[in-house]
Amino acid sequence: MAIEDMKNTLYQMGEKAKIASYKLAAMSPKDKDKCLNAMADALELAADEIKKENEKDLVAGQEKGLSQAMLDRLKLDDERIKGMADGLRILTTLEDPVGKELDTIVRPNGLKIQKVSVPLGVIGIIFESRPNVTVDAAGLCLKAGNAVILRGGSEAIHSNLALGHILNRAGLATGLPEGAVQLVPFTDREGVGILCQMDNYVDLVIPRGGEGLIRAVVTQATIPVIKHYKGVCHQFVDVSADIEMALDIVENSKCHRPGVCNAMETLIIHQDIAEEFSAKVAERLFGRGVELRGDSSFCDLVPEALEASEGDWSEEYLDLILAVRIADSVESAISHINKYGSHHSDGIISNERASIELFLNQVDSSTVYVNASTRFTDGGEFGMGCEIGISTDKLHARGPMGLPELTTYKYLVVGEGQIR
Amino acid sequence: MAIEDMKNTLYQMGEKAKIASYKLAAMSPKDKDKCLNAMADALELAADEIKKENEKDLVAGQEKGLSQAMLDRLKLDDERIKGMADGLRILTTLEDPVGKELDTIVRPNGLKIQKVSVPLGVIGIIFESRPNVTVDAAGLCLKAGNAVILRGGSEAIHSNLALGHILNRAGLATGLPEGAVQLVPFTDREGVGILCQMDNYVDLVIPRGGEGLIRAVVTQATIPVIKHYKGVCHQFVDVSADIEMALDIVENSKCHRPGVCNAMETLIIHQDIAEEFSAKVAERLFGRGVELRGDSSFCDLVPEALEASEGDWSEEYLDLILAVRIADSVESAISHINKYGSHHSDGIISNERASIELFLNQVDSSTVYVNASTRFTDGGEFGMGCEIGISTDKLHARGPMGLPELTTYKYLVVGEGQIR
Repeated sequence: MAIEDMKNTLYQMGEKAKIASYKLAAMSPKDKDKCLNAMADALELAADEIKKENEKDLVAGQEKGLSQAMLDRLKLDDERIKGMADGLRILTTLEDPVGKELDTIVRPNGLKIQKVSVPLGVIGIIFESRPNVTVDAAGLCLKAGNAVILRGGSEAIHSNLALGHILNRAGLATGLPEGAVQLVPFTDREGVGILCQMDNYVDLVIPRGGEGLIRAVVTQATIPVIKHYKGVCHQFVDVSADIEMALDIVENSKCHRPGVCNAMETLIIHQDIAEEFSAKVAERLFGRGVELRGDSSFCDLVPEALEASEGDWSEEYLDLILAVRIADSVESAISHINKYGSHHSDGIISNERASIELFLNQVDSSTVYVNASTRFTDGGEFGMGCEIGISTDKLHARGPMGLPELTTYKYLVVGEGQIR
Repeated sequence: MAIEDMKNTLYQMGEKAKIASYKLAAMSPKDKDKCLNAMADALELAADEIKKENEKDLVAGQEKGLSQAMLDRLKLDDERIKGMADGLRILTTLEDPVGKELDTIVRPNGLKIQKVSVPLGVIGIIFESRPNVTVDAAGLCLKAGNAVILRGGSEAIHSNLALGHILNRAGLATGLPEGAVQLVPFTDREGVGILCQMDNYVDLVIPRGGEGLIRAVVTQATIPVIKHYKGVCHQFVDVSADIEMALDIVENSKCHRPGVCNAMETLIIHQDIAEEFSAKVAERLFGRGVELRGDSSFCDLVPEALEASEGDWSEEYLDLILAVRIADSVESAISHINKYGSHHSDGIISNERASIELFLNQVDSSTVYVNASTRFTDGGEFGMGCEIGISTDKLHARGPMGLPELTTYKYLVVGEGQIR
């Protein structure tokens, strides 16, 4: 597709989305929930239509030689369609994040200043293979009163367009403004650059996918971006740790679901318990099939471990591999985490108050744990009821992002003729 | 200066700032205030040193042919030095924004999740002529526990470096970490690009200056940016407005300080009171020396007005010039504001509840006024006690930004061995 044609298409989509966003901002919670329910029902009713379009993506994927794991992520069956529909229904049970009075001040001159939550406006979501993102993101954005422009990957284009079509068909019939949920109908790479420079129309871009995609978005964007590049999460086993608890937490942080961003990638052990703990943790993790890559001190204690290279300390394995290092103090563990980590989720296992406080204060991560698995960094586990992603940024949203993070605020100032 | 040398210098500054930021995050409110007071005293004691360096900038500015207004902005005299010192002292009277418990939840599994305010880390400030920004920004960043890298314009380089030197001399002697306040020692244009791509070291960039500077930062930045390009602020005089109140508010919004971002640039008049109000407002504003540029309906009513071109509707005059248009409804006024405005500060003057509510809900601006001058959009007027700038962005901070907007949060999760 020619660049000019892409620009025209995207600008038109942007303009429609902006107009829709003003209508969405004025919709009542009840009306938004009505749309969400209608969309959920429509997905289940149109299961055959969805599976037919999804099949096209699966066939193309096989021809392109996608891995079995990729094909599995792509696949939509009845269970997954029901899962997407239920996700929309759950949103109707959550509190509406719009129109909340965040603060009110009356100034000495009588001006009444109210800070009120409002939708962000138009959100661009740029994502890779999983087509369920189309439904999840559309639902979350709608619940928070935002219009959304979804740009999925080429592997799922038929599935995404079908889902978008069904959501709109049901939504438009129940009061969803036209332009509220739009799918980019092409997947040329250049479209990403255009979309994330549409300052006039788009208020926020959320890239969801591999580090390459995210870097491409960040480099080109002139619109604010919320992201997390990767999750290099740590557990530090302090000298005062309860050994059995530490073994359970380390095993769970690494093995419960090694392919996700809140899985532990590096273990740090205090040198004063290294001899006892290293042997035990090695036994436990070898038993789960984990490959250990240690610094020289750890390898001295556990000869079966491989030697870690400098690159291992910032590696997101997403696999049954763990880097292990021995530290001489909580301070040096903290320095390691702040230097090599991704500011996502990092924990200390300790029973000593001073170490715990130092760790909580000084580790510069979105979520800092004491005596718990890193696997809890998740909107659902935090009680948010849903999640549009996890931010390792510090601006606007940090950590799991729920509905309130999809809003901003404005100041309403009411006077009786005040001037300066 | 060679690019490589600039990079080396800036990366070293970034690394020092990052290390300092961890120390700043751990400083007590009392210790930060002690530094602020010492810095304030030092500025007044070193007034002669400051004026001597400032004189170099003034001489160079005259040689370069800077306008009288520019030279005036550059000038530091005893009164302005005292003003900067007092600004630092005021900060010590404000509440510390760090360490606030924003939320606490105990989950069914017993995990205790606390959301706590923490400093952002390292803030880059890129600014133009006024050297007082060096002191104001350093003070605000320090109070909120952030390290700051200041990159001022070439016109004020001697003044800025002198101020930075004095702040550090006093700060380091009273516990300020080395690297907490740093001035970029060169002003080559390329330095801006390097600084705002230092993801590893800098957490936020705030550009303060003309639209050209801000666009250059936004285009190049890979770090979050908070900004406002310009202030194209509106007042809409509704059919039900109190005419005398409207005249006062319009005059004040335009004339109180025409050169600032919250001054009104476009006036919109409801057609049903246009005949009466146009003549009166023209008389009032002509009396203040304001040039009026109207649409054809307004020019029919006020023949002395010039005809506005399309470009006038998005112009930030920063001068005694006002664009004026007649609208047939509150809806069309809202559409005009959302289309041509800068989402800064916009007001309605009205006594009709339905129009007021529609305006408050639908105008997509950081601050929306009812029956008051736009000139109140200001950290001080909002009761924040200070202001680092006004954001027309929607992410993280919107409207006047005070100390809380210079912080982020992190989640502290405390367990007793919980795993998934």
